Amino acid sequence: MIKLNTNENPYPPSPRVLEAVVRAADAGVRLYPDPEATVLRARAAAVYGVPADHVLVGNGSDELIALLLRATVDPGDRVAFPVPTYSLYETMVAAQGGTIVGVPFPEDWALPAALGATGARLTFFCNPNSPSGTLVPLAEVERLARAVRGLLVVDEAYVDFADPPPAGRPGPSALGLVGRVPNVVVLRTFSKSFSLAGLRVGLAFAAPELLRGLRTVKDSYNVNRLSLAAAEAALGDLALVEENLARIRATRTTLAAGLGRLGFEVLPSQANFVFARRPGVDVGRLAAALAARDILVRHFATPRLADGLRITVGTDDEVAALLDAIADLGTAA
Amino acid sequence: MIKLNTNENPYPPSPRVLEAVVRAADAGVRLYPDPEATVLRARAAAVYGVPADHVLVGNGSDELIALLLRATVDPGDRVAFPVPTYSLYETMVAAQGGTIVGVPFPEDWALPAALGATGARLTFFCNPNSPSGTLVPLAEVERLARAVRGLLVVDEAYVDFADPPPAGRPGPSALGLVGRVPNVVVLRTFSKSFSLAGLRVGLAFAAPELLRGLRTVKDSYNVNRLSLAAAEAALGDLALVEENLARIRATRTTLAAGLGRLGFEVLPSQANFVFARRPGVDVGRLAAALAARDILVRHFATPRLADGLRITVGTDDEVAALLDAIADLGTAA
Repeated sequence: MIKLNTNENPYPPSPRVLEAVVRAADAGVRLYPDPEATVLRARAAAVYGVPADHVLVGNGSDELIALLLRATVDPGDRVAFPVPTYSLYETMVAAQGGTIVGVPFPEDWALPAALGATGARLTFFCNPNSPSGTLVPLAEVERLARAVRGLLVVDEAYVDFADPPPAGRPGPSALGLVGRVPNVVVLRTFSKSFSLAGLRVGLAFAAPELLRGLRTVKDSYNVNRLSLAAAEAALGDLALVEENLARIRATRTTLAAGLGRLGFEVLPSQANFVFARRPGVDVGRLAAALAARDILVRHFATPRLADGLRITVGTDDEVAALLDAIADLGTAA
Repeated sequence: MIKLNTNENPYPPSPRVLEAVVRAADAGVRLYPDPEATVLRARAAAVYGVPADHVLVGNGSDELIALLLRATVDPGDRVAFPVPTYSLYETMVAAQGGTIVGVPFPEDWALPAALGATGARLTFFCNPNSPSGTLVPLAEVERLARAVRGLLVVDEAYVDFADPPPAGRPGPSALGLVGRVPNVVVLRTFSKSFSLAGLRVGLAFAAPELLRGLRTVKDSYNVNRLSLAAAEAALGDLALVEENLARIRATRTTLAAGLGRLGFEVLPSQANFVFARRPGVDVGRLAAALAARDILVRHFATPRLADGLRITVGTDDEVAALLDAIADLGTAA
């Protein structure tokens, strides 16, 4: 099975991470975990250059999204995000009884101008976006943060996969806005660049008073001991993460080029997946034909996305097998 | 430090549990966990004698309590429970905007008759109760289930610590009501009898249509791979759990007798803690004096509970040290 449908990292985490889990698998599991995740927050603060009281740890960033909604949104309150984007925002806003304000991305997937003017209590912005893989420059994110009336949540699940900036230039992350622009929340996850989707650890970065509100709706013991130990260790081996990121970026280039040769229009991706279209053609049958060959990719059966596939950047071998299979299936599928 | 304040199990889990965690700490952590917890649900179904579609797995039973509230309670809806009880119910009902209906336990901690007549959307009943440790017989729980208008959630976090019933008689658990009485939900946890508080796994048992409602408000990937592997293995070594339970019950008897000799009135406990009172005396100072000797017990500064301490049943050595310290402090503390 070649699994290119849920944007997992094709490479294992650092051996140090697995060693840390093995060390934590001792009699101590009988005791509750640290509800404050003190050690992990201190390490994250050091790595990301923010004070520790600007960090909250979640059971995956999905939990942090839920906490943000529960802490700030009452039934009927508006919650905005560009569409199409990460589908969980819509699911969770609906579960919270909020009113969804979906602002369509323009054809080129640039930041929709109207997103800053919705008056929403909360605005989600996934950057790089899923399923497009496109990235909006930091300066525009900062303008958006200053334009919105409520909170801006920048979901940076995929930002580590963006190309490194030229020497001396800032990267694309909005982390530098945290604390400086009071309504900004940045979400990160260990699921993607750190290869730890199975362990469920996410980080929220925001002003302490804002995080206090989230803590009031958080389960005390939301993150277990083993996942805390793993995430702490992961932040101690960034060199391996950088190696994996470089490999994934190189394979992304190969994948995009290969899909281009096969007649797809491929959006410029800064994530660990690409969105590849056969404009005007529903490629659901192609996705099914690939699945029949044990190659899973993601097809969204909606008008805007039905002519595209979201394909995770796997290993070079996985990507080669995918490209061969598509070539073999031809345009009939 | 002797930690007798949060009702953790003093004994480590089965070595098989730790081995299962070590086995699961491999490259597979890069992949998302099974959102349906299929393997764990199947094992729980076999162990507890219910169909697998009657089981839902949570990130600790705390998460299951939150899901129950989110799935069934709208702002202003009434949620009932006897008081005093597990303090999380009140916290979470407030967070959900529900109206709390606290029905006081009578002096003898029997089931409050009024609890069945509140008309609440949801009724929580912790059995054995915390902090009293007292147990209400199953027949009364069943009568309560049939009396309440909404759901009855029987939180059996501590039920494994109850004395085993005479041969041929049913135990105190309400699990046998699940499916048979449609409005009953039973909660279990791996935190107490299974010595896995650090790993956050809880189980909800209820009719499938009821669990479907909970799934709509559950994070897909709510329980991580390592905790799932640990809980699966834990259900495969019940003999060790039974051994630990027998030791804890024996130590509970020693602890209660020792506290009795020291002048406390000790409630009859069926949990892994006892509630011991010096009637009319605020024992907060005693708790503080014990803490100064690195012995942690739980004191609740409320009118009904201020004259008592909730003391976890630790090892025999821990309990002996506690009794010595209390004797040494005398009644001055």
